[in-house]
Amino acid sequence: MIEIQKTTESKIDKTNFDNLAFGQVFSDHMMECDYKDGSWQKPIIRPYGPLSLEPSARVFHYGQAVFEGMKAYKDKDDRIWLFRPEQNFERINKSSARMAIPEFPKEYFFEALEELLKLDKDWIKKGFGNSLYLRPFVIATESGVSASAAKEYKFMIICSPAQAYYSGEVRVKFSEKYSRAADGGVGFAKAAGNYGAQFYPTNLAKEEGFQQIIWTDANSHEYLEEAGTMNIFFRIGNKLVTAPTNDRILDGVTRKSVLKLAEENNIEVEVRRVSVQEIVEAARKGELKEMFGSGTATVINPIAGFGYKEQKFELPNMDDSYASFFKDTLMKIQYNETEDLYNWTYEVK
Amino acid sequence: MIEIQKTTESKIDKTNFDNLAFGQVFSDHMMECDYKDGSWQKPIIRPYGPLSLEPSARVFHYGQAVFEGMKAYKDKDDRIWLFRPEQNFERINKSSARMAIPEFPKEYFFEALEELLKLDKDWIKKGFGNSLYLRPFVIATESGVSASAAKEYKFMIICSPAQAYYSGEVRVKFSEKYSRAADGGVGFAKAAGNYGAQFYPTNLAKEEGFQQIIWTDANSHEYLEEAGTMNIFFRIGNKLVTAPTNDRILDGVTRKSVLKLAEENNIEVEVRRVSVQEIVEAARKGELKEMFGSGTATVINPIAGFGYKEQKFELPNMDDSYASFFKDTLMKIQYNETEDLYNWTYEVK
Ligand SMILES: Cc1ncc(COP(=O)(O)O)c(C=O)c1O
Ligand SMILES: Cc1ncc(COP(=O)(O)O)c(C=O)c1O
Repeated sequence: MIEIQKTTESKIDKTNFDNLAFGQVFSDHMMECDYKDGSWQKPIIRPYGPLSLEPSARVFHYGQAVFEGMKAYKDKDDRIWLFRPEQNFERINKSSARMAIPEFPKEYFFEALEELLKLDKDWIKKGFGNSLYLRPFVIATESGVSASAAKEYKFMIICSPAQAYYSGEVRVKFSEKYSRAADGGVGFAKAAGNYGAQFYPTNLAKEEGFQQIIWTDANSHEYLEEAGTMNIFFRIGNKLVTAPTNDRILDGVTRKSVLKLAEENNIEVEVRRVSVQEIVEAARKGELKEMFGSGTATVINPIAGFGYKEQKFELPNMDDSYASFFKDTLMKIQYNETEDLYNWTYEVK
Repeated sequence: MIEIQKTTESKIDKTNFDNLAFGQVFSDHMMECDYKDGSWQKPIIRPYGPLSLEPSARVFHYGQAVFEGMKAYKDKDDRIWLFRPEQNFERINKSSARMAIPEFPKEYFFEALEELLKLDKDWIKKGFGNSLYLRPFVIATESGVSASAAKEYKFMIICSPAQAYYSGEVRVKFSEKYSRAADGGVGFAKAAGNYGAQFYPTNLAKEEGFQQIIWTDANSHEYLEEAGTMNIFFRIGNKLVTAPTNDRILDGVTRKSVLKLAEENNIEVEVRRVSVQEIVEAARKGELKEMFGSGTATVINPIAGFGYKEQKFELPNMDDSYASFFKDTLMKIQYNETEDLYNWTYEVK
């Protein structure tokens, strides 16, 4: 049903898979589907290449744009797997609804993903940590500089080969002044503007020696919410604590999966507001054993230390870290190296 | 200094200037200036036309995009005027800084505006209410789907002929649930994502019979802040009241000018927090004489009524309305029909 225009010139031989910067190289094909006259038109897969848009296209002026991030994995037998893709599908439509963008049909989403992955299967490399990062996104293409929802959109999927993500030791700063999202705002959506808004405060934190910010609630800056592209977990003693999702926090697929794995593995979890004060005190008393982020790009990202106001705290190195346990368990499921007890994997065949 | 490529085929004869929808038609030329290798390159003016961008351009994914809105006016002697353009220049750079976009050089901004307006001067029609709407904007063009500030940008100016803006009677809804901006966020910036985020709640308000939302503070929804593209004024008795600007509210050029005119014309003004409760009570007691919005597109937009929770209030029709006074006074200055006491006008010659 999807129209496919194959590339005549694959770029794969020119691609160095041993030295990939995240999100810089794209595979041979992409999916494109236009919304006009009140409905999504026929999707098309064509060679990855530039778009032509009017300078008055609404995406440039009013930020009507949402995206998703997911990965395709190849197992030892060359079978291709996605991880909980229906979660990404539901989430992009939730993001779209909040940004007044029409929702995308489920069958188009899955058919497009499958066709694209079959075409570009050689771009998915085997081996723990290798994957093809998939970026579905929607932009408002209609021309017009008046502030109202567009009547024309483009849904696209582009694919970027990725290696295991190692960003060096990560130290985070707890935000005291800047914030990421308002109550009643769009923080729960993967809306493009949420990300651009974080770059400046994050750059300031980088100057102080931190790699990322842990955002706090905009009202009081007393409660820890999430990082720029990760949800965040704290291990106090042997208990795992994380903030509940709300309209300011992205409902992460990895977060959800960690919570399920914790429950199944008898790790005590509390999903509740986490105050800055509690974490600072736990760190002082030596009870804060770990902090880690969860997200599709990094899976689980251990955090080595944090800063709050003028204070800096270092976290211990744990032998039996929860971070390693979750990362390992999740990756084994993602790469089909273990039994899929929760029906999380989705084979592309 | 600016390179100019003139169009060979003007669209002006095909344009119906008596029937212009706002922001739909664009003049013959546009300005484009690229940022790369750490600096803004030479600006170029060329025929208005499409852009070619990678689907991985950061503006599509992370919403690094800011804009301005200003107008050029033609007086009876065919002289061309801008209104306080240095305010827009300073504001776009403030917006850019918050969105981690490099600031644009002042000489490029003014030279580009002047050259563009001289080239497209026939697109500026005489007559009160007619103007050429100018849309400077900046977008992150660098390719890459990793969440960090781009290293390449495009600054553009596009121009759209506009007639007097009459949107019919405007009734507004005071927001109880949704919000526009967080403390410590980007509400004060003309960042693209701030606008897309308003469309969904505004659509809900439209279904209830309102044309716009007056945003309240995200923390308590008790204080009135601004509308989607206008600052907001209340007249209680003969006193004018408006919210102070802060990091959630756009510092409007029209607002600033209204405040100055009020002061100069002995209209009592209070710039302070305005509670929903106060306005509802003033309306009940018949003391709320007027509400109006201020912004470049509409100049001054009288508001006919408002809704809060289940209640609806209608405002009286005033003979000696402040809204008409400010609109008339401002427009006479903008069209060079009166003395420019405050040095607000800027001639393009
Ligand atoms: C703001 C934010 N929080 C958390 C996450 C983690 O979500 P997920 O685990 O679904 O990738 C992401 C990335 O997708 C994100 O952008
Ligand atoms: C959010 C917002 N508030 C207020 C205004 C009014 O500002 P100005 O008077 O500078 O046009 C605008 C429009 O520019 C706006 O976008």
